[in-house]
Amino acid sequence: MSACVIQVINPNTSLAMTERIGDAARRVAAPGTEIIAVSPSQGVPSIEGHFDEAIAAIGVLEQVKQGKARGVQGHVIACFGDPGLLAARELASAPVVGIAEAAMHMATLVATRFSIVTTLPRTLIIARHLLQRYGFEHHCAGLHAIDLPVLALEEGAGTARHKVRDFCIQSSRGCDTGAIVLGCGGMADLAWELTQELGMPVIDGVSAAVKLIESLVSLGLTTSKRGDLDYPLAKPLSGMFSPLR
Amino acid sequence: MSACVIQVINPNTSLAMTERIGDAARRVAAPGTEIIAVSPSQGVPSIEGHFDEAIAAIGVLEQVKQGKARGVQGHVIACFGDPGLLAARELASAPVVGIAEAAMHMATLVATRFSIVTTLPRTLIIARHLLQRYGFEHHCAGLHAIDLPVLALEEGAGTARHKVRDFCIQSSRGCDTGAIVLGCGGMADLAWELTQELGMPVIDGVSAAVKLIESLVSLGLTTSKRGDLDYPLAKPLSGMFSPLR
Amino acid sequence: MSACVIQVINPNTSLAMTERIGDAARRVAAPGTEIIAVSPSQGVPSIEGHFDEAIAAIGVLEQVKQGKARGVQGHVIACFGDPGLLAARELASAPVVGIAEAAMHMATLVATRFSIVTTLPRTLIIARHLLQRYGFEHHCAGLHAIDLPVLALEEGAGTARHKVRDFCIQSSRGCDTGAIVLGCGGMADLAWELTQELGMPVIDGVSAAVKLIESLVSLGLTTSKRGDLDYPLAKPLSGMFSPLR
Amino acid sequence: MSACVIQVINPNTSLAMTERIGDAARRVAAPGTEIIAVSPSQGVPSIEGHFDEAIAAIGVLEQVKQGKARGVQGHVIACFGDPGLLAARELASAPVVGIAEAAMHMATLVATRFSIVTTLPRTLIIARHLLQRYGFEHHCAGLHAIDLPVLALEEGAGTARHKVRDFCIQSSRGCDTGAIVLGCGGMADLAWELTQELGMPVIDGVSAAVKLIESLVSLGLTTSKRGDLDYPLAKPLSGMFSPLR
Amino acid sequence: MSACVIQVINPNTSLAMTERIGDAARRVAAPGTEIIAVSPSQGVPSIEGHFDEAIAAIGVLEQVKQGKARGVQGHVIACFGDPGLLAARELASAPVVGIAEAAMHMATLVATRFSIVTTLPRTLIIARHLLQRYGFEHHCAGLHAIDLPVLALEEGAGTARHKVRDFCIQSSRGCDTGAIVLGCGGMADLAWELTQELGMPVIDGVSAAVKLIESLVSLGLTTSKRGDLDYPLAKPLSGMFSPLR
Amino acid sequence: MSACVIQVINPNTSLAMTERIGDAARRVAAPGTEIIAVSPSQGVPSIEGHFDEAIAAIGVLEQVKQGKARGVQGHVIACFGDPGLLAARELASAPVVGIAEAAMHMATLVATRFSIVTTLPRTLIIARHLLQRYGFEHHCAGLHAIDLPVLALEEGAGTARHKVRDFCIQSSRGCDTGAIVLGCGGMADLAWELTQELGMPVIDGVSAAVKLIESLVSLGLTTSKRGDLDYPLAKPLSGMFSPLR
Repeated sequence: MSACVIQVINPNTSLAMTERIGDAARRVAAPGTEIIAVSPSQGVPSIEGHFDEAIAAIGVLEQVKQGKARGVQGHVIACFGDPGLLAARELASAPVVGIAEAAMHMATLVATRFSIVTTLPRTLIIARHLLQRYGFEHHCAGLHAIDLPVLALEEGAGTARHKVRDFCIQSSRGCDTGAIVLGCGGMADLAWELTQELGMPVIDGVSAAVKLIESLVSLGLTTSKRGDLDYPLAKPLSGMFSPLR
Repeated sequence: MSACVIQVINPNTSLAMTERIGDAARRVAAPGTEIIAVSPSQGVPSIEGHFDEAIAAIGVLEQVKQGKARGVQGHVIACFGDPGLLAARELASAPVVGIAEAAMHMATLVATRFSIVTTLPRTLIIARHLLQRYGFEHHCAGLHAIDLPVLALEEGAGTARHKVRDFCIQSSRGCDTGAIVLGCGGMADLAWELTQELGMPVIDGVSAAVKLIESLVSLGLTTSKRGDLDYPLAKPLSGMFSPLR
Repeated sequence: MSACVIQVINPNTSLAMTERIGDAARRVAAPGTEIIAVSPSQGVPSIEGHFDEAIAAIGVLEQVKQGKARGVQGHVIACFGDPGLLAARELASAPVVGIAEAAMHMATLVATRFSIVTTLPRTLIIARHLLQRYGFEHHCAGLHAIDLPVLALEEGAGTARHKVRDFCIQSSRGCDTGAIVLGCGGMADLAWELTQELGMPVIDGVSAAVKLIESLVSLGLTTSKRGDLDYPLAKPLSGMFSPLR
Repeated sequence: MSACVIQVINPNTSLAMTERIGDAARRVAAPGTEIIAVSPSQGVPSIEGHFDEAIAAIGVLEQVKQGKARGVQGHVIACFGDPGLLAARELASAPVVGIAEAAMHMATLVATRFSIVTTLPRTLIIARHLLQRYGFEHHCAGLHAIDLPVLALEEGAGTARHKVRDFCIQSSRGCDTGAIVLGCGGMADLAWELTQELGMPVIDGVSAAVKLIESLVSLGLTTSKRGDLDYPLAKPLSGMFSPLR
Repeated sequence: MSACVIQVINPNTSLAMTERIGDAARRVAAPGTEIIAVSPSQGVPSIEGHFDEAIAAIGVLEQVKQGKARGVQGHVIACFGDPGLLAARELASAPVVGIAEAAMHMATLVATRFSIVTTLPRTLIIARHLLQRYGFEHHCAGLHAIDLPVLALEEGAGTARHKVRDFCIQSSRGCDTGAIVLGCGGMADLAWELTQELGMPVIDGVSAAVKLIESLVSLGLTTSKRGDLDYPLAKPLSGMFSPLR
Repeated sequence: MSACVIQVINPNTSLAMTERIGDAARRVAAPGTEIIAVSPSQGVPSIEGHFDEAIAAIGVLEQVKQGKARGVQGHVIACFGDPGLLAARELASAPVVGIAEAAMHMATLVATRFSIVTTLPRTLIIARHLLQRYGFEHHCAGLHAIDLPVLALEEGAGTARHKVRDFCIQSSRGCDTGAIVLGCGGMADLAWELTQELGMPVIDGVSAAVKLIESLVSLGLTTSKRGDLDYPLAKPLSGMFSPLR
């Protein structure tokens, strides 16, 4: 039996990505940690905007509920916009960590300023809003979009991955940025090799979030139920939402 | 035929509240404006936290889609957290205005600083986050929760309404705040009479949002489809979300 | 008799600009709204710095006083620096809206981030300060000066207007900005056609302010006289300022 | 002949206050510095709001022009709202310093956080806006209004002065604030004795501004004419404003 | 042999505190982690101000250098002001984490807003500055000083510990704060029992920092040597500082 | 006997730089002011990072203590990072001013926005942090590093000085910046001639700090001993630090 079971939720419905995210999580999990990689039963195949995020948030809640029933020790939301994060914290009793916050927190521990590389330009606003919400605006030296959709990252050696690498190489030459935050769950497997290649921290939020959950569990800390993250008030959920309660 | 049809979306499923919100909207609508007050076919009866908001956001999208099909000229999101606002802006071609932003914008036009009165303390964080997102932190002199649930406002002359009025009276005596923002769609009908009674702007977001939509329509402005509020990318929506596309 | 009379104050003394501003206001005014376009009896022919603004502020107050005597329902300050805004709010009983704030507020309703185009580079600091004061720094993607004086806009098809259009076209191609705010009352008549041509919101503050005043009137809201925008304290105004009381 | 002539402008028309302000300036002036205390030929007897400030700004410009003609080495704007500061900087060739900024700058050099005591509550918003503009929001531990008008300070041993002293004593006991900023030119003569009595910096902006002007002169620095503080553009000033050019 | 050796540096010279900090670290360390608790060979017995911090920073560097020689995988700076943090990051090749940042980061993962309890009021400014530097100002609901010196915490069941507990109990009753950050390394052993007793996260930075270091090590991340945290430039260190290079 | 003795502390150990800094200070000192230029007995020959700064802070404290014993009226910390500033304020009874803060304060009095030119890129983060701490982020139009070490400035007519001048010339042509702040004590002697040559304020912090100290002395203001800048608590300093008490 595992000491710690962490549910890694891919908020989109692409099973290949779920698998890759699960692999990235397992690579860093502590010996006693079991990773369960899941994705919503229904939703969007990729998340590239606020509309996609709103749908994904419901998928996150569906999975948090299932993970809670299963007794997991923590939940990771493995999409860079951290969709449904505060809603999930209300629902969960275990800690919940988003991969955007995880990567940003880690970046501030190893560099004074970091840059973010993401997929489509339209997702930049999501990163901007998170920087503001999390308090890391002053720690961000720049935001860059490779201008390719999320699923382009699924091609093993495709253009998307080359473009991410190119951005990292270029950033490592200047002196304005000390670390790179990978702004998409689909880039998870690039972090390790780019960190080695460039001699500069290239940070993936999936693995970062797994370690943060393990840390919280080890510290005996979980989502505060005092105040505004208390469980959702008991009220009837009608129609398709009824399974969420 | 109306020159302008505005869809006012109550994001919760309480029909009585939908009606009252519709009435508040009609009271200020211009002669040529028709108000359609709607609520989601499924969801939560009241919105008092992030979990409720995540569910309500889907209901908002469902209704925006229907309003779009019907050819409305604008959409109001009539819950003080403005749930699903940016997602709705992506989906809609007409302008979308949330009642929290509407009330806050109006407040800054008539006072240097305003206070917000809301329902349960756990919803204060939502108001705080919106103040930050919209840029009005410096314009907010204080936040107050009456510590009663949203639906308590449904009782015509109940405690909740008394508590809102008491807070407004008290605020009108100090000199720190020049206007009050009512922090719940269910308080919509209180604004007019309190404004008269206290000789101080007490602002309801539902009516404010209606006027802002009318203004945008009249100016020929609609949600920008250049950049990050462009229509959601075409992709298959599975399961219960398929009606949203 | 008009239901609503709005006084549109051009704070400079250029009558041709007053007329054009009046026309822009009338184009969007509601059926029941009458527009009175005025300018100070004395002052500066154009406003391109803080010195000009200080003078213009007195002209604004002179006109607000006259408008108040005439019983108008609202006052628009039609210069992008919103000169004398808070002073005018103290003096007025009706609502007062500046065109910079009006355009910025509207821009945040249709785009996540906007850009501003103004005239001389020396006026950029005024826009910067307003962004800070109004809370919209995070919503501004960029500021651009065409490097031509205000009055160059008076030439119907001149270079100045071409330069504004060029900037708008260029901005519409990138993905960083979703809307353009026209940073001068003299650009008022460009908004509509550029919005149509570019398929992107190009926002003029004069027309935006008229709609906001109409909105406030319709909502029964006026400048708060509780707190710091109360009428100026009664005290003797000497010399040339005596007509202001 | 003096090495340095500093014009101290009381922006209101109360001659008694002008005199007291002049005295405060002279008490700290360097041996080679001559103080010329002036006030506008017309305007308001005290400044307690934005309306009063708009009028006072013209008086400041009138005096700056005269001081410039007289060849002074610097101008002090001796009203805590720093009315007309940037306009005066455009007009002047010598440096211009406001007493609010002067006091705040000095306070940050001797304490990590300071408090401000001012006159009427309606003037607090002016101090708040200056804190934001100057960048000292984080350095301000609190704002307090004694709720008496400016001219009440004219009574030598009156209630107003007692109330200021009481506030300073109270602040010196807590540990949240390390210095007091006197928020009115009429309090200038209180600073020295309160500093001695309380063993805590109580800072008057008039004397602070004189020293900052002397410092700038000694450093060979004057208002930058590169960029946005360049001289006002040459244009006809009509009517009562014509003497300003 | 341990997979991971973490050096926990108590920046003051109180050996009893070093021991207690070491114990707190060991309680949460992963099976493969060895904790080495050290303190400077010379310095101050407790850190209660900027002067103490400046001295402590040298002690931190002395120890980082020794830890580096010993080949440790990470360094914790176990004083709530995080003295010498960026200097230590330059010197170290392994990651360095301060206990203030560690506790604050963790707090934002389990609550929307946290409060900080510290020792002497004069140390509050240090916490304020860190909140600003780290970006957590909006996440902090309040700061409280028990008004007792650091070493008072050394008495097992003394007043200081009671006062910390009282503050936590009181905070857990309100709804403004969801978690407590213990603002002193000497409070490390209180976190676990208070978390259990109050059913609310009470966070100690020492244990939090240990888990963050373990996380970084596991992720293959270390202090970025690209940019401004690169090793100190090679230059002669004279006198008492020569052992630091 | 001098009315005022100011101790100018060069925090590094380069005697040539100490001399040049002393000269810059003397050039602007008032007739009654005596300048004592000192540097630490031990430390680093130049300060180009946080590690160097931590060491320099001790040197600053050593010198402040000696200056205090000697009865000086003020202390200047003549390194652009203002190392040890708050620690020195605790230790000193006389006022302490850093050259970075001094230059920035002065810059905001003569321009709406300034630029900073510094030496190595790795020192930019120090300037960024100071801008945030002091509140001048909005007043800074840009930061530039000449990419040469501090000691390169010691060569009378070398590349470093050319590069600083080139940056100033270039900045004087644009309209975004109204003043230049020289970001290194070693540039002190460039300010006067560049100001004259370019007709634009080029500001050196050493001379600015001298004038601010003179100003504070003249105003009867000194570091507040109420609150968090009170003298360090009496406690034993062990080892090499014992001379500091």
